[in-house]
Amino acid sequence: MDVVVLAGGYGGARLAATLSEHLAGAGGADHGGHLTVIANVADDVRLHDLYISPDLDTIMYTLGGGLDTERGWGRRDEAFRTNEELALYGVPTWFGLGDRDLATHLVRSQMRRAGYSLTQVTAALCRRWGLEEAGVTLLPVTDDRVETHVVMQTDAGPEAVHFQEWWIRHGAQPRPQEFVQVGLSDARPSREAIAAIQQADLIVLAPSNPVVSIGPILAVPGVSQAIVESPAPVVGVSPIISGRPLRGMADTCLNAIGVDVSAEGVASHYGAAREGGLLDTWIIDTADAGQQAAVTASGIDCVVTGTVMDSPAVRAGLAAAILAQVRS
Amino acid sequence: MDVVVLAGGYGGARLAATLSEHLAGAGGADHGGHLTVIANVADDVRLHDLYISPDLDTIMYTLGGGLDTERGWGRRDEAFRTNEELALYGVPTWFGLGDRDLATHLVRSQMRRAGYSLTQVTAALCRRWGLEEAGVTLLPVTDDRVETHVVMQTDAGPEAVHFQEWWIRHGAQPRPQEFVQVGLSDARPSREAIAAIQQADLIVLAPSNPVVSIGPILAVPGVSQAIVESPAPVVGVSPIISGRPLRGMADTCLNAIGVDVSAEGVASHYGAAREGGLLDTWIIDTADAGQQAAVTASGIDCVVTGTVMDSPAVRAGLAAAILAQVRS
Repeated sequence: MDVVVLAGGYGGARLAATLSEHLAGAGGADHGGHLTVIANVADDVRLHDLYISPDLDTIMYTLGGGLDTERGWGRRDEAFRTNEELALYGVPTWFGLGDRDLATHLVRSQMRRAGYSLTQVTAALCRRWGLEEAGVTLLPVTDDRVETHVVMQTDAGPEAVHFQEWWIRHGAQPRPQEFVQVGLSDARPSREAIAAIQQADLIVLAPSNPVVSIGPILAVPGVSQAIVESPAPVVGVSPIISGRPLRGMADTCLNAIGVDVSAEGVASHYGAAREGGLLDTWIIDTADAGQQAAVTASGIDCVVTGTVMDSPAVRAGLAAAILAQVRS
Repeated sequence: MDVVVLAGGYGGARLAATLSEHLAGAGGADHGGHLTVIANVADDVRLHDLYISPDLDTIMYTLGGGLDTERGWGRRDEAFRTNEELALYGVPTWFGLGDRDLATHLVRSQMRRAGYSLTQVTAALCRRWGLEEAGVTLLPVTDDRVETHVVMQTDAGPEAVHFQEWWIRHGAQPRPQEFVQVGLSDARPSREAIAAIQQADLIVLAPSNPVVSIGPILAVPGVSQAIVESPAPVVGVSPIISGRPLRGMADTCLNAIGVDVSAEGVASHYGAAREGGLLDTWIIDTADAGQQAAVTASGIDCVVTGTVMDSPAVRAGLAAAILAQVRS
């Protein structure tokens, strides 16, 4: 059984880990399942001349057991000596660069400058974290540069900054007027990612930010089309529970593009597969059970279950609900 | 009073600090002295795609109060989280890269890749360490790449490696057959360094390794000539005490080039200024007082004093002995 997950950072990483936990047994005794995670790269940023891929790293660290789960990003047993020193040199340090985390960026940057693609670099980094042995392949959606910039509304008028700068430096406070994916129209999708989509038995949209995480994955030319054309069912997990994201600022982002901040609103945004959209099935949290009828009415099968992946029972239930959608 | 010191790492850094301590008062109430340190860059190495300048950093950290004085290199309150992680990624980590130290290399690498010269980068880094306020200018001897490679004698025949690899990775154990300064013949000396030499009231050769630290400074085309032509007296401090270097492996290096491992031997190696060599005065440790007559006989004034800079009294005595040589 080949499952493909489209994922951003924290929420995507947790869903990938949840599926990975339950997939090995799900394929039957003879053939364990394989998970391919196609990650967003539009959060990627170049800082201190280092190539930083926050979503790829969060997913890799989560699957490899190295994530600081309290903080939700970066490495366990982390310190920030290098960043402290960078500050003393007068270098901007709003991006929290941990000392352990830095090793990942150094290896990636050296390999990138030596000419390796982000796909190749990611594979090399993942070996250390044992992803292959766990039956997981992590792929950037593209090897090309696609970078989300945010047009912020400021007192002095609109100002465009890199997504990370808006998100971290400005705490996502200035109201976003527009999200622009720089480089998107020229980007080519990863060949490996397209092949995984074509061969999938199930495609999952993780409960990541629909605007700045899943959005830029789907918008890489060729990706949405490959998903629509794939015989695999597409199931999504709502990132909105009770009108709020569990974490992050999907509400601010959805507002900016005029999408209702609700489980139902995001389902409509992705659209029903039977009407040319993406979703065959939409999984919403029990807290939003009241929206099930409306989602169903829009032509998308709607499953209600626990989606807050804090307990083994909820994770098992969610994995079962998702894997039940696999094409037979 | 303008004093120029030619320096390698630890010994050079300590002498620079000693002179800096005593120079401010030496110029009289109205004009404190200025110290220009011209540093060796032939130990520089590119690792993890970072530009690392060990001698410049040791001098900068020493003068700025940031050196780990126990270890003799790198930063105080240091940890090695990044290096631990690099090892887990399978990257060679024989070079001890500290987390605080790394910030220096990141700033340098980013500025170098942006097109700034090593001289400009060094000035920028030194601002943070307050060198300007202390009346000290730190200059690389050249902005060009000059790199010491060591031809080692191994069981499989001669093998050439970067100096740092021989020094650190191999613990300077394989017997060096030859030291080759890659890039030396094409290197241009720093304009600022040459100007400092021309305007100096005193030029000092620090007690650094004569073969791989002071040697590559003097060998940059134009540097030795500028020193010989400068009206400033040239005084050197012997790096050899009782037939041994205080630290490091100058003995191994001197042996490799056929120079006697003694205070007198190194004096002969630099040569008497009055016979076309460099030295007007050679300062040897009290432990080597017996060699004073021989040095004097070779045409070099020889001063005997304490040179082990471990106590304020010895540092004051050494600084006084050196500064007494200033041209009047």
